[in-house]
Amino acid sequence: MPRRPNLTVTVALHVVLDDGASAVPDLADAIGKAGGRLRTLSTVRRLEPEGETTSPGVELEIEVEGVEEEALIESLGSVAGLRAQRLTRSMDRVFGKRVIVVGGGAQVAQVALGAVSEADRHNLRGERISVDTIALVGEENIAAAVRAVADLPRARLLVLAGSIMGGDISRAARELRAHGIPIIALNMAGSITKNVDLVVSDPVQAGTMAVMAIADTATFDLSRQRGRRF
Amino acid sequence: MPRRPNLTVTVALHVVLDDGASAVPDLADAIGKAGGRLRTLSTVRRLEPEGETTSPGVELEIEVEGVEEEALIESLGSVAGLRAQRLTRSMDRVFGKRVIVVGGGAQVAQVALGAVSEADRHNLRGERISVDTIALVGEENIAAAVRAVADLPRARLLVLAGSIMGGDISRAARELRAHGIPIIALNMAGSITKNVDLVVSDPVQAGTMAVMAIADTATFDLSRQRGRRF
Repeated sequence: MPRRPNLTVTVALHVVLDDGASAVPDLADAIGKAGGRLRTLSTVRRLEPEGETTSPGVELEIEVEGVEEEALIESLGSVAGLRAQRLTRSMDRVFGKRVIVVGGGAQVAQVALGAVSEADRHNLRGERISVDTIALVGEENIAAAVRAVADLPRARLLVLAGSIMGGDISRAARELRAHGIPIIALNMAGSITKNVDLVVSDPVQAGTMAVMAIADTATFDLSRQRGRRF
Repeated sequence: MPRRPNLTVTVALHVVLDDGASAVPDLADAIGKAGGRLRTLSTVRRLEPEGETTSPGVELEIEVEGVEEEALIESLGSVAGLRAQRLTRSMDRVFGKRVIVVGGGAQVAQVALGAVSEADRHNLRGERISVDTIALVGEENIAAAVRAVADLPRARLLVLAGSIMGGDISRAARELRAHGIPIIALNMAGSITKNVDLVVSDPVQAGTMAVMAIADTATFDLSRQRGRRF
């Protein structure tokens, strides 16, 4: 299974633009002309017009690869409707890799307890690991969340925390693993435990192992534990 | 203080493109021509060339506002180097609003316990609330994280969980609140408790109140509690 490569993001910018139909296309053009590739764009908020003379605006957070700060800022200066731009820190540097925990509230909370405590220990030594959770019920909702993890920025590992999961959740788990994101499941009823990398009975230990598996500061190698149950 | 408006995202797509300099600009153009606005773009992964004849590729997750699915898909069909596209669910529908918890590991874990348990109860009634955490130490790191919350997609409320915070963290807290994101802090040493919306001594209750404050299914109004200590 391929390990997910880190996307090398070189410059993070906060920009404010007139919110016209050509705003983002013009921005993307200017980035391309500077030799960069737009890797991330998030709309932070829309700005209402101030009085009758101004148009609506939009605040964006962007991350661009393959270009120096100065060249990018100069190139963006030519974008029509640019109101402001400033350098920020890329989300990767601030929030780092993400462990995602999905499932029932009581168990998600216990996995989070283990994962946050372990992330704390690694972050003290220079790592950046976030623990992100959502409490959900129902096969359809959980399967959709599992599939969506493939598209979450910086997601590196999923923990499934529940008492029974299978059916479409197991299909979604196989798809996610094919995308290179490993899964740890609690020991539970249903077919899910046959479709994950590791099964762990204690939720606190599951959270701890999840963080160890993605920390560069740990020696835990998930590929050597694959298929085991603890 | 303005409440953060939900961005109305109409269509979410997963697209695979040749990873050339014009890939994203062409994509943004096609979206604009269909009448849409590109609101979110995440790079899921880069694809290595398969053999000598193909070029590198890139997988993107995009969210587009103001256009119907059919019109968007037809317009993207004309983008040079488009390898695949499929509809997905927007992150907003899957993971919903986010409570962000930042601070020391032991306390972040207890806030998460309260927040995840409370989110579970609201998500059962149709809400979508995620609880996302990062354990950090040091004024500089925490202040950077507080500022970055303004740029996190779907972030609605921040909980600061620690034993002493002030200085630049207090400045960052004032900036974040000016952006319309409220803050709950644990009762702690330092100036931070004078620069937040609400101070709560018990971390489990702080997490619970954080979720109640952003849940449409709750009746807790943070603006009526502002400045209070529990």
